[in-house]
Amino acid sequence: MESLLETLQEGNAGRIEASVADLHPADVAQLLEGLTPEERPIVWTELSPTTLGEVLVEVSEGVREQLLQDIQKDTLVSAIRYLDIDDIADLIPDLPDEVLADVLFGVDKEARASLGEVLSYPEDTAGGLMNVDPVVVRENISVQVVLRYLRLRGELPEYTDKLFVVGRNQRLNGVLPISKLLTAPATDRVRLHVDTDPFLFNVLDTQEDVAKSFEKYNLISAPVVDDEHKLLGRITIDDVVDVIREDADHSVMARAGLKQEEDIFAPVSRSARSRALWLGVNLITAVIASWVISQFEATIERLVALAVLMPIVASMGGNAGTQTLTVVIRGLSMGTITRANMGRVLKKEFLVGGLNGIFWAFAVALVAVIWYQDVYLGGIIALAMIINLVAAAISGVVLPILLSRLGIDPALAGGVALTTVTDVVGFFSLLALAALFLV
Amino acid sequence: MESLLETLQEGNAGRIEASVADLHPADVAQLLEGLTPEERPIVWTELSPTTLGEVLVEVSEGVREQLLQDIQKDTLVSAIRYLDIDDIADLIPDLPDEVLADVLFGVDKEARASLGEVLSYPEDTAGGLMNVDPVVVRENISVQVVLRYLRLRGELPEYTDKLFVVGRNQRLNGVLPISKLLTAPATDRVRLHVDTDPFLFNVLDTQEDVAKSFEKYNLISAPVVDDEHKLLGRITIDDVVDVIREDADHSVMARAGLKQEEDIFAPVSRSARSRALWLGVNLITAVIASWVISQFEATIERLVALAVLMPIVASMGGNAGTQTLTVVIRGLSMGTITRANMGRVLKKEFLVGGLNGIFWAFAVALVAVIWYQDVYLGGIIALAMIINLVAAAISGVVLPILLSRLGIDPALAGGVALTTVTDVVGFFSLLALAALFLV
Repeated sequence: MESLLETLQEGNAGRIEASVADLHPADVAQLLEGLTPEERPIVWTELSPTTLGEVLVEVSEGVREQLLQDIQKDTLVSAIRYLDIDDIADLIPDLPDEVLADVLFGVDKEARASLGEVLSYPEDTAGGLMNVDPVVVRENISVQVVLRYLRLRGELPEYTDKLFVVGRNQRLNGVLPISKLLTAPATDRVRLHVDTDPFLFNVLDTQEDVAKSFEKYNLISAPVVDDEHKLLGRITIDDVVDVIREDADHSVMARAGLKQEEDIFAPVSRSARSRALWLGVNLITAVIASWVISQFEATIERLVALAVLMPIVASMGGNAGTQTLTVVIRGLSMGTITRANMGRVLKKEFLVGGLNGIFWAFAVALVAVIWYQDVYLGGIIALAMIINLVAAAISGVVLPILLSRLGIDPALAGGVALTTVTDVVGFFSLLALAALFLV
Repeated sequence: MESLLETLQEGNAGRIEASVADLHPADVAQLLEGLTPEERPIVWTELSPTTLGEVLVEVSEGVREQLLQDIQKDTLVSAIRYLDIDDIADLIPDLPDEVLADVLFGVDKEARASLGEVLSYPEDTAGGLMNVDPVVVRENISVQVVLRYLRLRGELPEYTDKLFVVGRNQRLNGVLPISKLLTAPATDRVRLHVDTDPFLFNVLDTQEDVAKSFEKYNLISAPVVDDEHKLLGRITIDDVVDVIREDADHSVMARAGLKQEEDIFAPVSRSARSRALWLGVNLITAVIASWVISQFEATIERLVALAVLMPIVASMGGNAGTQTLTVVIRGLSMGTITRANMGRVLKKEFLVGGLNGIFWAFAVALVAVIWYQDVYLGGIIALAMIINLVAAAISGVVLPILLSRLGIDPALAGGVALTTVTDVVGFFSLLALAALFLV
C-alpha cells in the first residue's frame, strides 16, 4: 500500500493499473483516502464496475461525495446495480438525482420493492441497517428437506449462521442455527432444533442498541421484526462492526468538535470552515474566562505573580475534570452509570477530586513559595486549587448527565462546558481570594 | 437492569436471586460494574459456576480483580474449568497461584497441552487471541463424508463459518466455507470447493493488525498458522469485536491519561492515585507555561490587559491544535496517513491553520479593541493569534508522527505535548510582541 502511494507520486501509471486490480475493495478505499482529490481519478478509472461499487460502500463520506460527483453517470449506475439492497439503500441519500432514477429503473421489480422497504425506515434504526435476504424455512419439514432445499437454492447469503423459521403471515417462530442443521439427525423435524427465543430486534430499535447487543451477546446475524412479530429482514455482524467503529470514531472526533467523516485531503477552505464553528464556540468560553480575570485587574496590577500562577490553577482543574468527564461519559454510554447509582458516582468523584485537590494544592503551593518566597501566596493558591479540583469533579459528573438529559451529545459539548467551569472557577477562586486576603 | 439496581439498593435480596438467574452473563457483568464493591457479593453468590465463569470473562478488569480475590477458591476453580481454552488463557495472568495450580490439575491432558500452546504466545498477538478448536478436514474426501463426519462429531464450535483443510503435518491447504458445504453436490470432492487463498494470520501478528483485517475484510473466523504454514488455531469475530472496542476505549481514555480498565467504583484512594500521575505531568507543563509568563512580569504590570487577554490566545491555539492532532492520530491509526503523504498533510493543515488564524485574529482583535479601546493592542493580539494557530497546526501534525516514531502512544501523550506548545507559543508571542511594540 505504502509503495503504491509512492509509485503514484512518481507518476508511474502503468504500474498502478496492475497493482490496483489485485487489491481488495477495502484496500482501494483506504488508498483513495490517502490520496489528494486530484490524484484519486488515477486509481478509480482502473476499477471494474463491481469493485467500484464495493469501494463506494467502503470509502469514507468525504471521498464518496467526490466519487459520486466525478464518476461518469453510466459507470456509476452499473457499479451500483451490482450491490446488495442494504448497501444501495445506504448510498441513495448521496446519489445525484439522475443517477438515482437510472439505478431504480435498472434493478428488478422485487429488488425495487425491497429497496422501498429498507428506505422506509430511518437510516440509524435496525430497519435502516437490515438486509432483506433472510433464508426462511418452515418448522414442520425435516432437516434432510432443508438440506436439499439449500442445495437447490445454491449460494447462501453472506454471514448466514442461522435460518429463520416462520409461520403464518411470515411471523417469526424462531431460528435454526446452521450448526444444528449440520449435526442433527437428517430425519429430525426442524421443530426439534429451533431456538424459539432468539435475540431479535424491532425494526425501529436504534442502531446503537443493535450494536451494543451484538457486541454483548456475540451475535453473527439476528432477525428484525415489526410490532406484529413479522420477519422483515436480518442484521449481520459486518454492518454492525462498521457501526461500532463509527461510534468509536465519533466519540473521539466529537471531543475536538470534528465531524467523523472529515476527509484528510478535503479542500483547505472547506476544512477551515468546518472547524471554524468550534473555534467560535471556544472563543466565547475563553472570553467569559477573560472577563472574570478583568474583574480583578487592580489586584493583578498590585501582585503580578497572580497573572503568572493563575493558568496553573485553571489547567489543573481542566485536566482533573476531563478525567472525571471521560469516565462518566463512558459509563453512561456503556450503561454502567444509571439513574440508580448516579449519586454514588458523584460521591466517589467528589472524594477523588478532594483528595487529589489536597495533594496537588501542596505541590502547587510549594512551587509558588519557592518561586515568590511568599507563604501567604502559597496558602491562597493551595486553597484555590482545592476549590477548583472539587468543582471539576462535580462538573465532570453533573455536566454529561445534564447534557444527555437535554438531548445534547456529551462527547461533543462536555469538554467545552467543563473547561468553561474550571477556567471560571480557577481564575475566580485564586483572584478573589487574593483580593480578599493578600492585596 | 435499572430496576435491578434499584431493588439492590432497597436490599431486597430474595427478589434479586430470581432476577439474576435469568440474566445473560454479559448483563450480569454490566450489573456488577454498576455496583459498589460492597454490593457486588450479593449478586455473584447467586450465580451458577458456568455463569460465573462467563461473567469473569466478560467483566472489566477492575471488577475481575475483586472477584478473583474475593470468591472462594473451590467455586473459582469449578467456574473456570467450564470455559474455553482461549478464555482460560486470558484469565491466567490474573489468577492467584493456588487457584491456577488447581485449574491446571483439573483440566484434561489435551486441554493442558492446548493451554500451554496458547500461553506460549504474547497476549496481544494472533497466538494469544486464537482458539485451538478448528474443525479440520482433508481435501480428498467427498462433501457427503464431511457432512456425515460432522453429524457424528456433534456440536460445532461457535462461529464456525468455515472448516479448515489441512494436508501433511497439519499444513493448511485452504478453507471450506460452511455455505459451500451446504450447497455443493454431495458427491463432489472437498478439493473442488476449497478456497486455497484465504485470509490468514501468522501466530505472531499483532492483535491490532488482526482486528483491522477482520474489520476491513468482514471476516467471521480465520486460520492462524506458524512460519511453516502449519495450522495452529483460529480467531473468531467475537474476540475481535472485543479488541476493536478495547482499542476504541483505549484511545478515548488515554487522551485523559486514564487506564481503560478504570472501575467506576474502585476505592477512592486507588482512583486518586491512578489519576495523580497525569495531573503531575500536567503540572510540569503548566509550570513551564507560567515560567514563560513570568519572564514578562514587568510588561504585564504596565499593561494588565495582557493578563486578561493572554488565556484567549493560548486556548484558541490549544483547541485548533487538538483538531489537527485528532485528525492526524486517526489517519495514522487507520493507515491513511503514511510516510508518502505526510508532507501534503502538513501543507494542508498549515493552510487550514493559517486561514483560521487570520479569520479568528480579526475576531479576537475586535474583542480587544471594543474592550480596551486600544487599536495597537488589537493588532498585537491578532498577530499573536495567527502565530499560535499556525504553530498549533504544525505541532498537530508533527507531534503525533514524532511520538509514534519514538514508540510513544500519541493518543496518550499527544494532547499534553500539544497544549504545552500552544500555551508557550501563545503566551510568549502575545507578551513578547507587547514588550517590543506596546509597552
